[in-house]
Amino acid sequence: MKFHEMTSPDLAAVDRENTLAVIPIAAVEQHGPHLPTGTDHFLCTAMAEALEQRLPDRLLITPTMWLGASAHHLRFGATLDSALDSYIDTLCDLGRSLLNDGFRRILFLNGHGGNIDPMKVAIRTLQREHPEALIAAGCYWSPSDAERESILEGDHKFVGHACEFETSLMLLIRPDLVRRDRLADAGELVTDNLNGVFLSRDMRHRTREGCTGRPDLATEIKGRRLFEAAVERLIDTCSALLNAPKGANYLGQ
Amino acid sequence: MKFHEMTSPDLAAVDRENTLAVIPIAAVEQHGPHLPTGTDHFLCTAMAEALEQRLPDRLLITPTMWLGASAHHLRFGATLDSALDSYIDTLCDLGRSLLNDGFRRILFLNGHGGNIDPMKVAIRTLQREHPEALIAAGCYWSPSDAERESILEGDHKFVGHACEFETSLMLLIRPDLVRRDRLADAGELVTDNLNGVFLSRDMRHRTREGCTGRPDLATEIKGRRLFEAAVERLIDTCSALLNAPKGANYLGQ
Amino acid sequence: MKFHEMTSPDLAAVDRENTLAVIPIAAVEQHGPHLPTGTDHFLCTAMAEALEQRLPDRLLITPTMWLGASAHHLRFGATLDSALDSYIDTLCDLGRSLLNDGFRRILFLNGHGGNIDPMKVAIRTLQREHPEALIAAGCYWSPSDAERESILEGDHKFVGHACEFETSLMLLIRPDLVRRDRLADAGELVTDNLNGVFLSRDMRHRTREGCTGRPDLATEIKGRRLFEAAVERLIDTCSALLNAPKGANYLGQ
Amino acid sequence: MKFHEMTSPDLAAVDRENTLAVIPIAAVEQHGPHLPTGTDHFLCTAMAEALEQRLPDRLLITPTMWLGASAHHLRFGATLDSALDSYIDTLCDLGRSLLNDGFRRILFLNGHGGNIDPMKVAIRTLQREHPEALIAAGCYWSPSDAERESILEGDHKFVGHACEFETSLMLLIRPDLVRRDRLADAGELVTDNLNGVFLSRDMRHRTREGCTGRPDLATEIKGRRLFEAAVERLIDTCSALLNAPKGANYLGQ
Amino acid sequence: MKFHEMTSPDLAAVDRENTLAVIPIAAVEQHGPHLPTGTDHFLCTAMAEALEQRLPDRLLITPTMWLGASAHHLRFGATLDSALDSYIDTLCDLGRSLLNDGFRRILFLNGHGGNIDPMKVAIRTLQREHPEALIAAGCYWSPSDAERESILEGDHKFVGHACEFETSLMLLIRPDLVRRDRLADAGELVTDNLNGVFLSRDMRHRTREGCTGRPDLATEIKGRRLFEAAVERLIDTCSALLNAPKGANYLGQ
Amino acid sequence: MKFHEMTSPDLAAVDRENTLAVIPIAAVEQHGPHLPTGTDHFLCTAMAEALEQRLPDRLLITPTMWLGASAHHLRFGATLDSALDSYIDTLCDLGRSLLNDGFRRILFLNGHGGNIDPMKVAIRTLQREHPEALIAAGCYWSPSDAERESILEGDHKFVGHACEFETSLMLLIRPDLVRRDRLADAGELVTDNLNGVFLSRDMRHRTREGCTGRPDLATEIKGRRLFEAAVERLIDTCSALLNAPKGANYLGQ
Repeated sequence: MKFHEMTSPDLAAVDRENTLAVIPIAAVEQHGPHLPTGTDHFLCTAMAEALEQRLPDRLLITPTMWLGASAHHLRFGATLDSALDSYIDTLCDLGRSLLNDGFRRILFLNGHGGNIDPMKVAIRTLQREHPEALIAAGCYWSPSDAERESILEGDHKFVGHACEFETSLMLLIRPDLVRRDRLADAGELVTDNLNGVFLSRDMRHRTREGCTGRPDLATEIKGRRLFEAAVERLIDTCSALLNAPKGANYLGQ
Repeated sequence: MKFHEMTSPDLAAVDRENTLAVIPIAAVEQHGPHLPTGTDHFLCTAMAEALEQRLPDRLLITPTMWLGASAHHLRFGATLDSALDSYIDTLCDLGRSLLNDGFRRILFLNGHGGNIDPMKVAIRTLQREHPEALIAAGCYWSPSDAERESILEGDHKFVGHACEFETSLMLLIRPDLVRRDRLADAGELVTDNLNGVFLSRDMRHRTREGCTGRPDLATEIKGRRLFEAAVERLIDTCSALLNAPKGANYLGQ
Repeated sequence: MKFHEMTSPDLAAVDRENTLAVIPIAAVEQHGPHLPTGTDHFLCTAMAEALEQRLPDRLLITPTMWLGASAHHLRFGATLDSALDSYIDTLCDLGRSLLNDGFRRILFLNGHGGNIDPMKVAIRTLQREHPEALIAAGCYWSPSDAERESILEGDHKFVGHACEFETSLMLLIRPDLVRRDRLADAGELVTDNLNGVFLSRDMRHRTREGCTGRPDLATEIKGRRLFEAAVERLIDTCSALLNAPKGANYLGQ
Repeated sequence: MKFHEMTSPDLAAVDRENTLAVIPIAAVEQHGPHLPTGTDHFLCTAMAEALEQRLPDRLLITPTMWLGASAHHLRFGATLDSALDSYIDTLCDLGRSLLNDGFRRILFLNGHGGNIDPMKVAIRTLQREHPEALIAAGCYWSPSDAERESILEGDHKFVGHACEFETSLMLLIRPDLVRRDRLADAGELVTDNLNGVFLSRDMRHRTREGCTGRPDLATEIKGRRLFEAAVERLIDTCSALLNAPKGANYLGQ
Repeated sequence: MKFHEMTSPDLAAVDRENTLAVIPIAAVEQHGPHLPTGTDHFLCTAMAEALEQRLPDRLLITPTMWLGASAHHLRFGATLDSALDSYIDTLCDLGRSLLNDGFRRILFLNGHGGNIDPMKVAIRTLQREHPEALIAAGCYWSPSDAERESILEGDHKFVGHACEFETSLMLLIRPDLVRRDRLADAGELVTDNLNGVFLSRDMRHRTREGCTGRPDLATEIKGRRLFEAAVERLIDTCSALLNAPKGANYLGQ
Repeated sequence: MKFHEMTSPDLAAVDRENTLAVIPIAAVEQHGPHLPTGTDHFLCTAMAEALEQRLPDRLLITPTMWLGASAHHLRFGATLDSALDSYIDTLCDLGRSLLNDGFRRILFLNGHGGNIDPMKVAIRTLQREHPEALIAAGCYWSPSDAERESILEGDHKFVGHACEFETSLMLLIRPDLVRRDRLADAGELVTDNLNGVFLSRDMRHRTREGCTGRPDLATEIKGRRLFEAAVERLIDTCSALLNAPKGANYLGQ
């Protein structure tokens, strides 16, 4: 089910208890010389739509909130940024709209690393208001960490930025927007993690050109394998969320 | 030019002074029994894309901020709402992202009546920060008021909600999402305007079923005429905005 | 009835359902070389007091919130400005004070163009909290648009700033504060409206000296005719607001 | 000088360094059975105007911000209240308007006890932004504490609420609004101060009818003596503020 | 009882009605050349702990909120400052945590002058939410004003900053942190009070080296006498707060 | 170096470039039946003090901000909670105080899981304001993940709440506050992580009594090994932070 394609009587008839409402969130920000700024938006939307096609009776997706928390890219330009506090407010507004309309299982499906922290603050805020509801948030790539690590060839196995992973997916989803002539090894990535301690460095500090890893190793074939693995594992996650106990108290007590 | 389809080097090369950056904003909210909740989003996006096709070298469009200020629809359900204060913040964030990146001509192109007031507060806020820039905001239907009034048949000549106007446009843009079996005269519209005084009444008070006017008179043919007239007049407006004097002082002094 | 001149037991006895509480709001800001900064405050207060004299048993007026949202005048100096977000909060506080005390019919009577947008955001906010109440907002000059257009002689028929309209009214209300020696044609007004699209330009950009239209055509006689027409039409509006259906649902259902 | 009665060229000519800008702030709130809700507004305005008449070339007064922080009166009704956070913002907005326009000596002249704490938070905030300016805040009655204590007859020598002090002043300033038939001993005042510790009790807790002390001992003659003493001492204070060293550093270093 | 040393079942068993919850608040900020920045924190904590030792069954102390509102010290450096608005929020959060957990008698015990105004705004805010509770706030030195004035030798009898009073107490509480070699007459203190009018001057303006009065007259013996007097008088205050009538209405009506 | 034990001249002499300022943050909240609510505060403070003892010339520690974001514990009572938005503000205030005073290497050392998300939002906010500084944040236990996993005996190897890990540390640091008679297997922990997706469940939902894992397996000997391993690895981390390149641009370019 797609929220935006349904009429209000149709939405009124949706089973609030047994439907998972999925709110995709992404970003539009610089993605190096070879990928379009809308990369996270295109990929997260494609994921959400694929999930909906697989479980059309149990998932209700909203449009993708394509605006993200992208301040760490601003010094590269080409970035639309929501300040952290207003982004938290916007995500809370989205969640509240569904929770106050009776929905009881919500998933924020994220496609941009910079959104993780404000997204978690947002669902912590919502949880206080609706302790009886199941409110979840995660990145579309997390459930398939293992598959991604086996598919990627470069040393950089995690999800970076405009990297082998994202570039491969874009070669599948929007190949017309990939500048193949600019694919190159991104060079050293200055770390934002030192022994488990997070360093708040922006992308101008961490990268030479705003991208990471080995975009030059990206292929459409990898993109298809990555996409399929991600969807498969996300379907497992959505099913688990549909079956998870809600309720405010321990073990249903 | 589409912001989200361009790479950062491509965006860096855009002429900041002679480009109009267009930020479409809309809503996803109940639209009566016959139209999908995403109506404003579909229509505003179609308008923005048509404009960009007509002036691809002078207009730069961002994705549509589909979330709107829709609190006056919440009592009907089926509505995703951004609270007024967070919506103002989000629009300011969008404008700032472009203004701080050097763009000097900005248009918020709106497709939802409830957004008008917060949108105007937002651009008043931005104007203080960037008195040298040209910051504009309007509804996609305003420049073609005269044409619309001559095309519509029902008594209700203005843009209401899920009305003859919006329904005709949806029959053109997304006919698959229109429930033709539910098209009916919407009945009396309780006014929100009394001698020029605005009454803040919500849609549960103003309408029987969340829609206004004569959706039953909508046709695809009217939709096409309305769409073409809107685009034609908006192109005039965009051209005027591209030629208007910027600058902080009177008559360039 | 004047809120500030009554004791609390007297106010407790007021019929909440059948009284219209009127909150005048204005501004103190530069008004060109010939009018005092308090112009909007003097005029809006005079209007509110005249209304109260006409319907003393049905209208309850508060003092005039003379501070307004005047950021677009700041570059001329001589302006007391409330930032847009704090102004919205203040208007909500005023409305809440009356709504929480049981009043059910509220009118914000505005005397300053820059207040319109935040005022409308404020009453949209209040409407969510009190859907059962009638909450209205308008400019004191709007109900008498037709009369004003016939009385004014200059081309500029609308309400500008320190213009023929405001200057004529000031010649009636506070002639001692009008600098007649400085009355002059204000010259070209740079527009803030292009085909229905609002341009957020400040007064330093739009005017040469902070005023508009033909103050040199102002007369006390016009002032009297304008004042009487405004009051007459506002009385009609207030009467209509006193008789309008309240209630949260459509046609009293 | 009265800000609101002057034109912008007149205000531009005011000597910023050697003028004290006075912002009267008050409240409109329940004042027991015998005084009007506007009492603080009437009295503070009368004080400010008397000061301006005495030092017309050195003092610049704005209109009185009649809205105050009156939440502790709300349970009695008949009260217009600004929430504490929005009140702080409003006072900062007022101060900033003058400071950013170049004024360098500012006095908030307060007429309502509940405003003291937010007023002090506001000027602490402004001080950070303008360390070079002299920013002061006080109650109109404070400089004449000694005189007041000798004039009042009741045991209650401090400024309470609708007490012998305020009632005497109202018998001078607006005797038409005093309900002499309701003047009575207010009974025990439950304290809000215990060994120097402040108890945040509201007026419903502290008073039987919303007033304090001995309003029955009030006379117009006392009112005149109190008024004259207050003005005399405030003139001393204003003179001192006009002569006090500004500047950000110790002893002008 | 110490909140932080108790388990949750132990805290659940505390008598909410007959216990006074004490929240010490202080500051860590420059204290002149001779005292450590944590002076207010050390002293306020020592006071709170001494009180708890005296009335262990009736007082429940939390840890000391050592961060304070210290913006007026920032120009001297060596200062950790909470902005005024966030400090008000933090104090409200602390109070709400206890009030929502059922506690009905709360005392904010303050050890820093700059906290007084935001602390009072905070408890005014809390009072609106919990009119039935007794919410108090005061400085640890206030109840013993008379004793302090008789013990101190310098002219400066009030509590200044890093003065004879605070230095004597530190010689008792943390003598290891006092730089005795730097004790000197602090020189003239530029006043922040002119006839009862508060001047918002920062410490760089008011003092030569960030301290006041006669630290050179400080002795450990005075410190002990000051400490004992303060505790004795605070115990009286706490006892009074434990016996004071709560309840929202006048004289228990 | 301890910020709060130093005078302002001493702090002014600290080398801003080559010192790591450490801000410990923790929580005071229910910790099951056997641990005191101040557990996180005691442990985080002990860690910070041990680090300072090891590198006294290179580390500057502030007092521990013992208040944390603990809303997910509130339904158990015995919890002092800072709302998420005010907590973010407080952490930003702390960071700004040091950054504006010239410090260039900052570490928030966290001792409470619920603080992680707001702490990361805070340092992302600070990074925008100070791109030239090194701003880091991490939990005290993270660098020694491997050691902890080998020392703990229960299945639950991660840091839960009042678990084998925290209880062992408390048996070392504050054994007097551990209720040994209440140590028991905490029973099933309802997960907050499903395939990498975070579920915002509160502790009333996740645990039977507010604690997790096997507190009954805790020993002081384990506590000592855990503490020593944590300190050792944190010293490595601090050294790395002291040597890490600052600067706003890639590889010092």
